[in-house]
Order: sequence, then structure tokens, then C-alpha cells
Amino acid sequence: MNQGASRFSTARSARELITKTQHFTFANSPEEMVLESGHRLGPITVAYETYGALNKDRSNAILIAHALTGDQHGAGKYDESDKHPGWWDDMIGPGKPLDTNHFFIICSNVLGGCRGTTGPASINPLTGQPYGMSFPVFTVRDMVRVQKALLDYLAIERLLCVIGGSMGGMQVLEWAVTYPDQIDGVLPIATSGRMTAMGIAFNEVMRQTIMLDPAWNQGNYYPGAGPAQGLSIARMLGMITYRSDELFGLRFGRRMARSRPDDYYRYDNRFEIESYLHYQGEKLVKRFDANSYLYLCKAMDIYDIGRGRGGLAKALGRIKAKTLFVGIDSDWLYPPSYMVEMTKIMEKKQKAVEYKELKSHHGHDAFLIEFDQMSPIIKDFVQSLAEAKGL
Amino acid sequence: MNQGASRFSTARSARELITKTQHFTFANSPEEMVLESGHRLGPITVAYETYGALNKDRSNAILIAHALTGDQHGAGKYDESDKHPGWWDDMIGPGKPLDTNHFFIICSNVLGGCRGTTGPASINPLTGQPYGMSFPVFTVRDMVRVQKALLDYLAIERLLCVIGGSMGGMQVLEWAVTYPDQIDGVLPIATSGRMTAMGIAFNEVMRQTIMLDPAWNQGNYYPGAGPAQGLSIARMLGMITYRSDELFGLRFGRRMARSRPDDYYRYDNRFEIESYLHYQGEKLVKRFDANSYLYLCKAMDIYDIGRGRGGLAKALGRIKAKTLFVGIDSDWLYPPSYMVEMTKIMEKKQKAVEYKELKSHHGHDAFLIEFDQMSPIIKDFVQSLAEAKGL
Repeated sequence: MNQGASRFSTARSARELITKTQHFTFANSPEEMVLESGHRLGPITVAYETYGALNKDRSNAILIAHALTGDQHGAGKYDESDKHPGWWDDMIGPGKPLDTNHFFIICSNVLGGCRGTTGPASINPLTGQPYGMSFPVFTVRDMVRVQKALLDYLAIERLLCVIGGSMGGMQVLEWAVTYPDQIDGVLPIATSGRMTAMGIAFNEVMRQTIMLDPAWNQGNYYPGAGPAQGLSIARMLGMITYRSDELFGLRFGRRMARSRPDDYYRYDNRFEIESYLHYQGEKLVKRFDANSYLYLCKAMDIYDIGRGRGGLAKALGRIKAKTLFVGIDSDWLYPPSYMVEMTKIMEKKQKAVEYKELKSHHGHDAFLIEFDQMSPIIKDFVQSLAEAKGL
Repeated sequence: MNQGASRFSTARSARELITKTQHFTFANSPEEMVLESGHRLGPITVAYETYGALNKDRSNAILIAHALTGDQHGAGKYDESDKHPGWWDDMIGPGKPLDTNHFFIICSNVLGGCRGTTGPASINPLTGQPYGMSFPVFTVRDMVRVQKALLDYLAIERLLCVIGGSMGGMQVLEWAVTYPDQIDGVLPIATSGRMTAMGIAFNEVMRQTIMLDPAWNQGNYYPGAGPAQGLSIARMLGMITYRSDELFGLRFGRRMARSRPDDYYRYDNRFEIESYLHYQGEKLVKRFDANSYLYLCKAMDIYDIGRGRGGLAKALGRIKAKTLFVGIDSDWLYPPSYMVEMTKIMEKKQKAVEYKELKSHHGHDAFLIEFDQMSPIIKDFVQSLAEAKGL
């Protein structure tokens, strides 16, 4: 085993990953992290998981960046009886596209998250109380710098690849632009180089809905459950934007959730699509902190890889990593055109860039669903990076 | 002047319409109207406006059906100093596409509305209190039957045309299917034959947001302002769905609403798109009742012209009116495909049907904006109907 073994939870079984979340803390006083905003934040704890083993050269590390409501539990189970594997378990594991027999996979909860990484629900050491809305606004760049600190701690100087979709794809692009000399390849999925007005619009409606819930109480609800209704409704809206008209039509159509025909003319009747959304909303509330949701949506809104770098094209010009954009034809939240635009910009600049598109009626979330299409794309890309390094 | 002249507010000026809202009441006890649900409702007052004069044969009447937040004030001003003409004033008036020198135009506030027609804010005669959420669920068919009662009162047996967009288009289709022998032509715009799962999904999020506002109070807020915040947020969401990603990008992009650069990293910063949406939300609250919004959205959700008629195709088979569907290429709430589908069904059935499409980046609301494209379409269609009748 290598030097840093104690910091890694590696797969013990060739057939199934058993994992655990680890924690790393940095930016202790007086060395707080200076955020992009200029605010200081510390200490910062990062919750992370790793799968597979780091090789001798420490050259087989792949970072997975999660989306808005994702977390560090990207793959595996916490014990044999665990019924819910990580959110990308179909992609990560022994013999899977991100093969833990060959690669060392790292997945961490983002800054501002609520699954162990420092966020609004964490205790502010200056007050002894949860930060709540006094948590400083952070950016996708800050998320990436926190991930970099984790990698420094793990003594990983170079990443073979960074992969992620949606907000994860934003982190991927920030990685590529911020640390161009330390990554071999990047795979941003269903994402954009800057948040669009339409994306900001949906995020603002979701924020306003959470804040409308009296239980939000200006963010001061800990240790209570908080604005469960507001967060649930926000999630319902989010789910609409992650899917497609076609999918909803095929899957739910106009079927009523309950079969009693007299319900049709009741105000409180429900179509199946409504029941589905309520279910999704209530499910998220059990595992997610509303203030984290607010801050992460804000981080997406102010995300712009061109900011302070002379614009989108100049920022993309910094990238040295081999880049594979993956879009989804039915994604109307982050339409393929955004990624096609970036691909064209990079092509003009003679970058090693490619664009591939999933055919799916699942919409934005297809990258979490269409494993048959995702698997060869990811496997081949990572394989090509590995071969280029002689791994 | 004809017999019913006192019931009409006709144009006095050849250049500008001066109008007033009139009222008509029917369904008095014990002859309440039996709604599609089986519930009885009465008395029902209808607020309406008319423009132009009815001809001797009473054969030049055109009914305009309004959308969700529209009303009976389709055209003209209430007095010379009035700065806000009706919502389709560009289309209706002397010399305009719906020329009041030739046609008699009727526009009424829908059942369940809040601008004078009986709705949730009206007094329930049985209790002496506003209905609130005890108002019965009504349907688009019920709206149309109330309009039919108004036409009976005006002694108009036949309509030259029924025109409307969005929820107005649903009424148009219901008219065509319910009263096939009493209409010469129908012009449904940016609409569908039944609400889709995606449409129901957005409506449910809007309803939940209104109901989340503590000021909603189960609908018992009269004579107070009611759930202003909840309704405002619902409207913000509605506005997103009525426009397009492209429009928002062109019009607002990522510009900040305030120029102070240090605002960028504040949680309460605002992009221009956010300010625009807040403005639209606050504007609606001043003129719209939240309970009406809830009921009208529900009426749209349960709208299905095929219900109880053997399905969409069979319902469309009843239509005898010349039909012109108008879609909008950037409309993702009621995509052109829905209207193309209905056109094809009617073509197969040898109906006099046509489909035209507006080219616009304005999205669903283009029918309220793209007058240069709308004008010839509407003018030509109505003219052809008039010529066929020798008007």
C-alpha cells in the first residue's frame, strides 16, 4: 500500500465497493481561505470518498464533481446491507466505465454543501452558532479551490481527468481553466461556461419559494427541519427543468394519481405528474439543507468562467487538458448549443476538443440515467487519457 | 340602431375606441347553472366589453377569449386620458385587423375571473361571504357555456369567429367542438387540445407557491390583499414559461440590475432578469386575485377537449368551423407540434383547417407581441370568413 493509504477508503472486493466518507479539515485560523469575494472562511472541512487505489506514480486519479443536490457518495455502499449505492454507482466500480481496478476515484461534497463539507448549517467558530445566512457567498471557483486543497492533502499533484455534469460540469470547466497544467483531460457534461438568464430566472424562483416558507425564518431554523415545504416546492420546479415535456408525456400523460373518477373535478385532485413531483420534493427535504440549496443556486448564478479572465473565449483559451463536452439533445436547461459553442471556440484555438451528444428524452438528467450511452463515452475517453500516459 | 343597442358599448370615434365594461347576470336561484362537475352555481355575473356595432343580420360578431391573466378589456380606453388600452388593442379597433368598422367584437372576463365575472372573490349568496376556496371547480367548457349565455342575452345566435391564445385558445377549441353549428371560423393560437403533463407540472408548482404564503390562509383573505408574495412568485415562474431562453439571453444576458461591482458576491444581488421577473410579479399582484389564479390553473389542468367525447380525434371531428391554428416556433409551453398534430387529425377528416407559425424569439407570449406577423394572419382569416358570408 502506498504512503497515503490511511487517507483512502479503497475497494476491498473485486465485485462490489464498500465505502465510507472521510473528512479533511484545513484553513484553520489564522489561515482561513480567502474566497473569491474577499471574505475569509475557516476552518473548512471537506467530506469525501475515494474508490480504487492510487498507483505508485500517483497518476491515475480521477475527480468526480457532483451536481446541485449530489454529494461525496458517488459510488458503492456503506455496508453489505445498504440498499442505496452512490449516485453514479453505475459508472464507478470494479469493471465499470470508471474502473476502480485501474483508477483512483475521488468524490467530495462541494463547499457550501450539507453532507459533511462546511456550509451554512456548519457552526461558525466566531459565534458558536450555525452560519445560516451569515455564510459568505462562495463561487464555483471557490468549490474548485477547496477540492484542490483536498488533493494537496492527498498528495495528488496531477489529475488524469475531472468529470461532472450540470453544476459538476461547471466545476470541471473551472478546473480546466484554473489548473491547466495539472489535468490531462476534462469531461464536462450538460453544462455551460456561464449561467444563462433563463437559468438564473429558475434559480431565483426556487430561492424565493424557499424564503417564502415561514419556517425558513431568515435562515435561522437549525436544528429544526427548516422550510420543508418551500424546499420541496423548489425541488418540484427543479425536477421539471431536469426532465422533458416528452418524457412527462410518455411517462405520466394525463393519468390521474387516484382512480376515483369523482376526483377529476376536485381542487385537490392530482395527476400522476403532480404526485411524482410531490414525491421528489418530499424526498429531497429529508436529505438536503435549504440554506445550502440557496447558496449553491447563487453560486451557479454568479458562475462565469470568463469573469475576470477577459471573457468566455479567453478563459477557454487557457485550457490544456483534452476536452470532451457531452450534451443531451432534450436538455433545455443547458441546451447542447452552449457546449457546441464552447467546442467551436476551442477548435478555433486548436485545442484537443470534442463534442458528443446523448440521444434521450430524459432531458438534463439523462447523464444520471442513460448509462448505456454514457458508459462507452466515459470509458473510451478515460482509456485514451490513460493510454497516452502509458498507464 | 338595433334592438340590443343598450347592451353594447360601441365605438363612437373612427380613430379611437372609448369603451366601458358592462355586466350581465344570469343563473339566478333556483335556475343555477349546472357545472360540468355537477355542482350548481348562481347567480353568475359576466363582465364584458363590446367594440363596433352589430349588423342588422347579427352576423358580424366575433368573440375574443382571453388568456390566464387577461380580462374583458380587450381594446380601447375607458376615457381620453386613459394611458392603458386593452390587452389586444393593437388588433382590435377601427381600421385594425379586427376592424370595428365592420365587425362587432365581444370580449368577456372568464368564469372564475376577478375583473367582474363571478369567481372565488365573489359573494356566495348562501353565506353572504366571499366564496374563497368553496368556489366550485369549473372547467374550460363551463367558461364557454357562460360565454354562450352572454351571447344568448345579446341575441347573437351565430359567431363569425372565435379567437384566442393560450387559455383563450382552449376556449376557442371548446367553442368549436361544443357549438359546431353556430360558428363560421375559429382561430386558436399557441394552445393545445388538452393540457400536457409538463403544463400541469408548472401549474402545480405555481399553486403550491401561492398556497405556501401564510397570507393565503386557505383562501380566506378577503377583503385583504391576500398572498401577494406567493402570487408574485407564481407569476415570476409563469413569465419564464411564457418567454424563451433566447429572448432572455438577448434582452438581459448576465447584466447586473445594479452597477455596484461589489454586489456581485452578495446573496441579495440581482441580475436584470431577476429584477424584470420581480417587477412582473409585483405588477400582477395589483390586478389579480390569487384564488382566481388557483382555479384558472386548475381549469387548464383538467382541460381536455376529448374528455367524454371519445378522445381528441373524435372531438376534433365534430368541428364544422373553418379552423386556423397559429403556433409560435419558440413556444415551449404549447409547442407548435401540438397544433400541427391537431391540424393533421383534422386534415385526415377532410376539415377546412390550416396551420400557420409565427417566427419569433418571444416564446409563448409572441401572440401578444408580434403584431406585424399576427395582423395579416388574423385580418385575412376574418376577411375570408366575412366574404364567404357576403359581409
